[in-house]
Amino acid sequence: MTESPRRTPPASAFAALHHAEEPLLLPNAWDYASARALAGQGFRAVATTSLGVAAVAGLPDAAAATREETLRLAFVLGSAPLLLSVDAEAGFGDDPDEVAEFARELYAVGVAGINLEDGLGPAGRLAAKISAVKRAVPGLFVNARTDTHWLGDGDTADTLARLDAYQRAGADGVFVPGLIDPRRIAALVRHLDVPLNVLYSPAGPSVRELADAGARRISLGSLLYRRALGAALQAATDIRAGRSPEGVTPSYGDVAGLLPPPG
Amino acid sequence: MTESPRRTPPASAFAALHHAEEPLLLPNAWDYASARALAGQGFRAVATTSLGVAAVAGLPDAAAATREETLRLAFVLGSAPLLLSVDAEAGFGDDPDEVAEFARELYAVGVAGINLEDGLGPAGRLAAKISAVKRAVPGLFVNARTDTHWLGDGDTADTLARLDAYQRAGADGVFVPGLIDPRRIAALVRHLDVPLNVLYSPAGPSVRELADAGARRISLGSLLYRRALGAALQAATDIRAGRSPEGVTPSYGDVAGLLPPPG
Repeated sequence: MTESPRRTPPASAFAALHHAEEPLLLPNAWDYASARALAGQGFRAVATTSLGVAAVAGLPDAAAATREETLRLAFVLGSAPLLLSVDAEAGFGDDPDEVAEFARELYAVGVAGINLEDGLGPAGRLAAKISAVKRAVPGLFVNARTDTHWLGDGDTADTLARLDAYQRAGADGVFVPGLIDPRRIAALVRHLDVPLNVLYSPAGPSVRELADAGARRISLGSLLYRRALGAALQAATDIRAGRSPEGVTPSYGDVAGLLPPPG
Repeated sequence: MTESPRRTPPASAFAALHHAEEPLLLPNAWDYASARALAGQGFRAVATTSLGVAAVAGLPDAAAATREETLRLAFVLGSAPLLLSVDAEAGFGDDPDEVAEFARELYAVGVAGINLEDGLGPAGRLAAKISAVKRAVPGLFVNARTDTHWLGDGDTADTLARLDAYQRAGADGVFVPGLIDPRRIAALVRHLDVPLNVLYSPAGPSVRELADAGARRISLGSLLYRRALGAALQAATDIRAGRSPEGVTPSYGDVAGLLPPPG
């Protein structure tokens, strides 16, 4: 008799993707079908985008308004055959225990990772949330985001102080959206003990250049949802103007095939 | 003192669009932001797509599984400044009174129209639902869809018999997705007393040709959601391959601007 193979827990498999030969290119889905379709394109993991989840639901982004919608999406995707990281904004609250409870719920439905952002609030506040989450669910990959470049002026000392605090609190990785200069990325990578996540921008360096600078995870953020919306608007206005819509369009059966069967 | 202008009830304004000089080109949204963005492009009304709603939620389409998700989308869009028609599949049940109750809930949140389909089931079943809905909410525009072309072989006698039954039951309009031949559209229009809705197909006649054949309402169905998904997948795989993503992409602020403000 052979031993049955032990399945790698999703979070460990997800963590390993941050230490593979190539960095993790992580596309962000806004709903069930987009996550399944991205996984079907060979992406090794899929994240969610808080802007996309907010846009779907008709709620403001980054305002702690989409806790239930985020959990619902995680729930329906949790059983799907993909590694999922969830954008949880700032954890949908200031109480570290409540953030840890949210993280525990995510992990329970099969989520592999979580993003928590500081929104330029006190570093100690996010550090306390990270500590609470790692205590409650050590297996969940915690990616700690500082908004020093996204919302602030990109001050280096502030960025380093915050990331140091998040690393000490137990973050498995750190995320600096808005940081795209390869030299600054390389300098930050030399300083860090955990993998650095950056946000791809169509106006910035290529995935190859970001990888060469040392980024270990490259997210697409809200870009795919925004592009999806732009393409739909373009198709509608093209048709109105008598033009045929352009671009790749999955069939009805392609999309229906991503969904659970009836019954 | 002048009289304050009386606001046209949404359903009446929506009905009038079926009798205007140009037919109603009705784009189908899959979520809150896509509906708001389409209205922002000047479309006079917006519909929902049951495939899109199912794809967002991770539920099967046309299987009576998305009643709550459909109602939730109607609820968040009901207060938005747009005329909304809701794709309610077959009414999410076989009991005409339950379908009427669902229609009443839609109308109560500001919805102007509803689509109800026969799924090739008995014509009397859909006719009974239409009667029940029109009794409960006379102001709601009921668009009765037969699936003789969409799911069946397009038999003309069957199509006419079904549409006659739906008209007699009180349908305000009828919908024959899959019917795209202009001569058959023209013949059907001559037979009908209510506006005919057809489904645009990129492989079929243009909006102009469908209008000239007599269609009074031209829906885009699931096309915009499918194109959105296709564009997102294309962008993700382009970026992975080192190519810059192509096509119109709204900014973060553009999308956030479609959403309700925080607080």
